[in-house]
Amino acid sequence: MELLKKKILEEGIALDKDILKVDSFLNHQVDVKFIMDISMEFYNYFKTKKIDKIVTIESSGIAPAFATAYRFGVPLVILKKQHSSILNQDLYETKVHSFTKNTDYMLTASKKFLNEGENVLFIDDFLANGEAVLGANRLFKEAKCNLSGVGIVIEKSFQPGREKLESIGIDIYSLARISKLDKGVIEFK
Amino acid sequence: MELLKKKILEEGIALDKDILKVDSFLNHQVDVKFIMDISMEFYNYFKTKKIDKIVTIESSGIAPAFATAYRFGVPLVILKKQHSSILNQDLYETKVHSFTKNTDYMLTASKKFLNEGENVLFIDDFLANGEAVLGANRLFKEAKCNLSGVGIVIEKSFQPGREKLESIGIDIYSLARISKLDKGVIEFK
Repeated sequence: MELLKKKILEEGIALDKDILKVDSFLNHQVDVKFIMDISMEFYNYFKTKKIDKIVTIESSGIAPAFATAYRFGVPLVILKKQHSSILNQDLYETKVHSFTKNTDYMLTASKKFLNEGENVLFIDDFLANGEAVLGANRLFKEAKCNLSGVGIVIEKSFQPGREKLESIGIDIYSLARISKLDKGVIEFK
Repeated sequence: MELLKKKILEEGIALDKDILKVDSFLNHQVDVKFIMDISMEFYNYFKTKKIDKIVTIESSGIAPAFATAYRFGVPLVILKKQHSSILNQDLYETKVHSFTKNTDYMLTASKKFLNEGENVLFIDDFLANGEAVLGANRLFKEAKCNLSGVGIVIEKSFQPGREKLESIGIDIYSLARISKLDKGVIEFK
């Protein structure tokens, strides 16, 4: 998506081989009009599928996921991150490893909000190692939900997330795919 | 706002004198159409003021704040919660006590996104003790921003938040004001 690539080149700050700061429009300050515009891209790509709910993970996925849920006219479910296991019969829970922060966290969802047979579209700001999506997908499987697709604002294509997800048949649509990142360097696929 | 009161009575779960769960439409699952509708209330109340930015705190304020920013056509700034001080010359930082969780956290904002002379409208899901808003206001003062008002989805009027904020001249607009809460009991002001 050219509009997003332009925005990333203008406002993104590439700190090193791993870190791209886009906190002027996506993570910290949010360019709401822009996010509403790009959510139409997700809608256009996935609109032929049956989508009952949008799902994301707190907190930086919430803005693009909210906008996408608005486009589809469906509810949004925000998966929660916990520091430790809070085993509870009303919750689905799975451990996720964050390579970015080199820590584990527990990803949880109330059983009330993921129901058998529901078709969910997962939206997030970044795709890198794919561990967050895989964790979410474990919750969906436990709830017997169907993951209809994954919409990502910025994919780091040089990391193995897409490969892992495609290998288990997940349909991923990324609005921008970055092939190379380094201090001051941003290249697109 | 009658629509919100009705929703709270239908879907809210009052657990005790302090805790109202509204995770079916506001916190965990988000009724996006409903949140977009109620954001018009904030717009109508505050539209005569000059509003340059909407500000909220991650993560449960993001959905109503995003919707309100969309109504005003302005950016959203999401203040971050940190577990410990991360003193950094590029950040504003202040300690906030959470009575709900009985812990302290550091509230932070990048200096880039709060600028001198800006008029900000603070939006959050709940107002109880007011400590989060007071913390945000300390960051605004440091940045020389002007807090134009505070919009709250659900106010617990039996707690001292409103009194503290009004005593320093803050204009608060709450969409629902709960005067009494107890197991199975929800009463409005």
